Amino acid sequence: MKHGANIYKYAKELGCNPEEIYDFSSNINLYQPTQTLTLQHSVVSKYAETNYSQLKEVIAKNYEIDTKEIALYNGATSAIFALLKSLKRKDVFLYAPLYGEYEKACISAKKNIYKINRISDEEDEPNEDSIVVFVNPSTPEGEYTPLDTLLEMWMEKECVIIIDESFLEFEALPSCRDKIKTYKKLYIIQSFSKFYSCAGVRVGAIFAHQKSIKKLTQPLWNLSSFDVEFLKERLDDEEFKKHSRELHKAHKAQLQNILEESNLFSEIVPSDANFILVFSSRGEEIFNYLLEHKILVRTCGSFDYLSNNWLRFAVKDEEAHKELENYLLNFK
Amino acid sequence: MKHGANIYKYAKELGCNPEEIYDFSSNINLYQPTQTLTLQHSVVSKYAETNYSQLKEVIAKNYEIDTKEIALYNGATSAIFALLKSLKRKDVFLYAPLYGEYEKACISAKKNIYKINRISDEEDEPNEDSIVVFVNPSTPEGEYTPLDTLLEMWMEKECVIIIDESFLEFEALPSCRDKIKTYKKLYIIQSFSKFYSCAGVRVGAIFAHQKSIKKLTQPLWNLSSFDVEFLKERLDDEEFKKHSRELHKAHKAQLQNILEESNLFSEIVPSDANFILVFSSRGEEIFNYLLEHKILVRTCGSFDYLSNNWLRFAVKDEEAHKELENYLLNFK
Repeated sequence: MKHGANIYKYAKELGCNPEEIYDFSSNINLYQPTQTLTLQHSVVSKYAETNYSQLKEVIAKNYEIDTKEIALYNGATSAIFALLKSLKRKDVFLYAPLYGEYEKACISAKKNIYKINRISDEEDEPNEDSIVVFVNPSTPEGEYTPLDTLLEMWMEKECVIIIDESFLEFEALPSCRDKIKTYKKLYIIQSFSKFYSCAGVRVGAIFAHQKSIKKLTQPLWNLSSFDVEFLKERLDDEEFKKHSRELHKAHKAQLQNILEESNLFSEIVPSDANFILVFSSRGEEIFNYLLEHKILVRTCGSFDYLSNNWLRFAVKDEEAHKELENYLLNFK
Repeated sequence: MKHGANIYKYAKELGCNPEEIYDFSSNINLYQPTQTLTLQHSVVSKYAETNYSQLKEVIAKNYEIDTKEIALYNGATSAIFALLKSLKRKDVFLYAPLYGEYEKACISAKKNIYKINRISDEEDEPNEDSIVVFVNPSTPEGEYTPLDTLLEMWMEKECVIIIDESFLEFEALPSCRDKIKTYKKLYIIQSFSKFYSCAGVRVGAIFAHQKSIKKLTQPLWNLSSFDVEFLKERLDDEEFKKHSRELHKAHKAQLQNILEESNLFSEIVPSDANFILVFSSRGEEIFNYLLEHKILVRTCGSFDYLSNNWLRFAVKDEEAHKELENYLLNFK
C-alpha cells in the first residue's frame, strides 16, 4: 500500500468521504493554516526561470547553505530516484527499516541492495566505496541518531552518504548539512512536505557540495510556478515555524499520553519526529477496530523487520486525539 | 539554448528586467487573463489521491476520451521521457525538424536515432517495427499535416506511433485521438501549457489505448495540487477556449501582415499554429537588431536542416506587435 494514499482506498471501502476519516497514517505537520493563497494567473502563463534562483535563495537562507549547494526536484521521491540513478556505484546499504521509496529507487537504478538492521544489536558495517542511506530521524520509529560515529566510519570507508532529514525540523535537531562543504560524497535529502505542511506541493531538494550538485542532472522546468510561489512564502514564514513547533510539542505529549493511558501497547517508542510507533500483540485487531470507527493508522508490516502489530500514529489535532482516545479506551 | 528560457539570459545580457522584453520566442497562448486564483492552503496540506481522478475526468470530457486512456506526467517533457524509456523497441525515426526534447529523450533511453527530413521532397520511410515520432502541427513551421496516408503506412509497418498534438487546439484541427481505441501502439503527447496559457503549470499527458496506458509507469504524486486545481478549472472554461481562438485568429493575421509588409523576409511559412516561421538571408542580423531593442525572437539554428537565418515569431498581443512592426520597418 502506498503511504499516505490509504485514506482514499479506505474511504471507498467504508463508503464515506475521505474528509470523514481521522487520518493518523499521514505524518504531515498538524498545523495546517486556513490562509488562502492568491495568485495571478499570469504567474503561470510564462516559462519560469529554469534555475529557480529566487526559491533557491529562500532555501539557502533557511537552511544556512549556499544556493549552489541545492538541486531541486519534483518532490523528495523524485530527488531520491534521480540521485541513485546518477551515482555510478553499485552497492547500496540501506539502514532499515526505512520507507519504501529508497528500495524502489535502488531497483530502478539497478543497484545491489544490502540492508543493515538498525533495530538489532548487531553492528553491521557497509562495504568500502559503497553507498549508504540513513533516514534521521528514522521512520517508522521517529528516532534521532547523533551521527558523528557513523559518519566517521562511513567517511573512512569512502562511502557515498545519503542522509534523509525530512523529519528533522519538528524538533529543530542538529543537521549534517554543515558537512557538505568538506565531504563531497555527502548528500542530504530534504522534503518540504512534512514540516511545511504541503504534501500537495511537489518540491524536494538535494543538498550537497557544489561540485556534486553540478554533476546531477535536473530536469528542465520540473517545478510548478504555483508551488514555487507557495514555498518561497512558507519557508520565509518564521511565525509558521515557531507556531508549528509549539503545537507539535504540546500535541505530541498529548498523543503520547493517550497511547500510554490506553494500556493497550506493550511498547511505545520514544520519538523525535511527528509520529509515534507502538506495538501490541493485538495491533492488527486495533487497526481494524479503529478503521471501523473511521480512524486510520499506519500498520508497519511493509517495513523491514516489523509486523502489522506495529502501529504508527501521526501527531494530530485535539479533535482527532479526542476521538482516538475515546475509541482506544473502549477497545475490548 | 533551452527554448523559452532565453529571456532570462538575454535580460541579464541587456541589463534589464525580463518583463521589459517583448518575448516572441515563447509560443504560449497570447490570451493570459489577469484573473486571480484563490486557493486554500489546506488544498496542499494533504496527500492528493494518487490517480488524480477528478482531473482525469475533466481531461477525458475535454478531449472526448476515456479516463483510462490518460496517463499524467509532470509536464509534456516528462511524458516524452517516460514514454521513450518504457518502450522496448530500439529504433526511433524522428520526423525532423522537431523540438529537441525528443532527441534528448531518445539519447536518455539509449535508442538508435534516425531522422526523416520532413521539409525535403524525398519520401523516406521508417523501418518496420520501429518507433516514429511526428509533431502535428509541426515546430518550427506550424504546419498541420492530415496524417491518414502516413498513419496507414506506419500501421502497415507495425510501428509504435507517437504524435505530438500540443499545438493542435489553437485552430481546433482534427486529432488522431480517435484512433487510440483501435491501434494499441498509438500514443498522443498532449501539452496543456501552450493553448491553456500555463507554462508554469507542470502537467502533461499521454493518451493511448487503456492497455497501453496500464503498461506505463506513472510516478507517485508527480503533480502539484495547485496545478491540478488550476487545470480542472481552465480545461472546463469554454469562454477561455472561445476567446483564445478568436484572439489567436485576429492576432495571427496581424502578425502575418506585419511580417509581409516589412519586406524583409523571402519566405513566410503558412502556419496552422500560434507562431510563424520566416527566412531572410539577413535573419541573424535581424535577430540581433531586434534584441538590441528588447524584442526577442527564436533563431532556428538548433533545429535540424535550418539555420539561424530562419526566425520564428510567436503570435503576441497588440502592444508587442506594434513594437515589432515599428522596428522591422526601420531595419536597414
